[in-house]
Amino acid sequence: MLNCAIIGGGPAGLTAGLYATRGGLKNVTLFEMGMPGGQITQSSEIENYPGFFEHDKTGMDFMDTWQKQCFYFGLKHEMKKVERVAKTGEHFTITLEGGESVEAMTVIVCTGSTPKRAGFKGEDAFFGKGVSTCATCDGFFYKNKPVTVLGGGDTALEEAFYLSNICSDVYVVHRREEFRAAPPTIERVMRKENIHLVTNSFIDEVVGNVMGVTGVNIKNNNGEITHMDNTGLFVFVGHNVNNSVLKDEKGEFICAMNDWGQVIVDLSMKTSVEGLFAAGDMRIQAPKQVVSAAGDGAVAALQVIAYIQEQS
Amino acid sequence: MLNCAIIGGGPAGLTAGLYATRGGLKNVTLFEMGMPGGQITQSSEIENYPGFFEHDKTGMDFMDTWQKQCFYFGLKHEMKKVERVAKTGEHFTITLEGGESVEAMTVIVCTGSTPKRAGFKGEDAFFGKGVSTCATCDGFFYKNKPVTVLGGGDTALEEAFYLSNICSDVYVVHRREEFRAAPPTIERVMRKENIHLVTNSFIDEVVGNVMGVTGVNIKNNNGEITHMDNTGLFVFVGHNVNNSVLKDEKGEFICAMNDWGQVIVDLSMKTSVEGLFAAGDMRIQAPKQVVSAAGDGAVAALQVIAYIQEQS
Repeated sequence: MLNCAIIGGGPAGLTAGLYATRGGLKNVTLFEMGMPGGQITQSSEIENYPGFFEHDKTGMDFMDTWQKQCFYFGLKHEMKKVERVAKTGEHFTITLEGGESVEAMTVIVCTGSTPKRAGFKGEDAFFGKGVSTCATCDGFFYKNKPVTVLGGGDTALEEAFYLSNICSDVYVVHRREEFRAAPPTIERVMRKENIHLVTNSFIDEVVGNVMGVTGVNIKNNNGEITHMDNTGLFVFVGHNVNNSVLKDEKGEFICAMNDWGQVIVDLSMKTSVEGLFAAGDMRIQAPKQVVSAAGDGAVAALQVIAYIQEQS
Repeated sequence: MLNCAIIGGGPAGLTAGLYATRGGLKNVTLFEMGMPGGQITQSSEIENYPGFFEHDKTGMDFMDTWQKQCFYFGLKHEMKKVERVAKTGEHFTITLEGGESVEAMTVIVCTGSTPKRAGFKGEDAFFGKGVSTCATCDGFFYKNKPVTVLGGGDTALEEAFYLSNICSDVYVVHRREEFRAAPPTIERVMRKENIHLVTNSFIDEVVGNVMGVTGVNIKNNNGEITHMDNTGLFVFVGHNVNNSVLKDEKGEFICAMNDWGQVIVDLSMKTSVEGLFAAGDMRIQAPKQVVSAAGDGAVAALQVIAYIQEQS
């Protein structure tokens, strides 16, 4: 029986593992199919994680210390896919791919969310190298430079506004005439002088070289292509919350979720199920920042330790 | 008029400053009397902040990068003591020592909390060098070694239990016969084999050398002194929440607080007053960890940026 099963190996899961094992908990396993590290390993640069400020280091370099540190205190790593978490009596059953299962006293779910891809040419090749899904993370790299935003919902316009305070000009490309965002958000964006709305258009291709993105080709509904030079591209076409492990065999969630499929937690990262915690980008109101996800992971692990103490 | 006044220069305040200014906000000032950095600068070693894992570095070394990074994007530092924050109409007035005042659109309060001192000999000299007020932070440095805990309340016993999973033996020194903690906590502690209760006693002196604490002298109510060798000392005699800036001239709090004087916030670090945010150790349910305080600071700053956008 595990004392704690941690599902997901991004900043939240790794930090939870660090805190659980350094807090003296034995039998703590982190389930992650690939190499732990999370979305940040796809970034070419990071400068908003406090204490890490080296401009020549990538997200992969950044996570290097985490690997050593978070596994140093006895955290185990299982490279197995988790299918499902179920509460069975007092404890949890974790069903793995292939049908094998593991029992655990507590579970911390931190499987994150995955930004949707828009599907234009070059998107995968330049992801993290000029194609971004996070204005907070990457906006500053385009200080006083023009950027292009793809999307027409609330997030796209809010992030465009955020970028407009940093960048010289923000071109918001949207495939329709009308925006889906809330009217006050649309009005605010319309009033902002350096935000330009490019409607009835989509991104045809992002172009670049080994250094990253150099520009984008925007195609309108008439098929005309405009090339924008010297710009980064921010894509906000939605996120998929990776919550499938919290669904039972009938497809029902085992804990309370909001309408967007995010786990409802309190300040202690407690879910509606005792002994089940959620941390990082998959929880409600997640700011989707490494430092916040890590903070969540620490809190969840301390709560796990307290919960197990109470059971003893 | 400041866009944002940040009060307090620990990990929460510094991270809030980093996120606010990197997010394009102008006129952001951090008020902190001394050098920013917070309680962690008093630690001789830190190993639970993800990404920082260098055993020969102190808390002061650790904060070195933070200083450069958090002030790099335009955050200003005012070495002035804040007396009071008041909401005056749509914005805030920050009254400084001496009567001078500053106006701000938004305020993030992160003045932390201060562990109370017990008053024994050597306490100040060895603080952060073997005398600790944080089991989560420093317990692991005594893995499989004996430690001494001072205190008789809930926190003292809960932290003793936490330490008992890491350390060989935990000696809980309490000046009375009875413990003030909740009965289930006391029973749990009594059942744990490696926790030893040393009642009717107090710490007379903590002794050590340039490397830090080497042992403690425990004095009982009859005046007998027992020397414990090779032990760290954890002091849990309460915290003072540094909330005085949130009191008005009549001594009433300007926002909702809990019974312990901690600021009530939601997951977005919003207080009960619009435009006023709290982050770090002074908020309810704070885990009192650098990474969590930093996570709070990031969230609060992103909320400040969104709040100011909504006003525009």
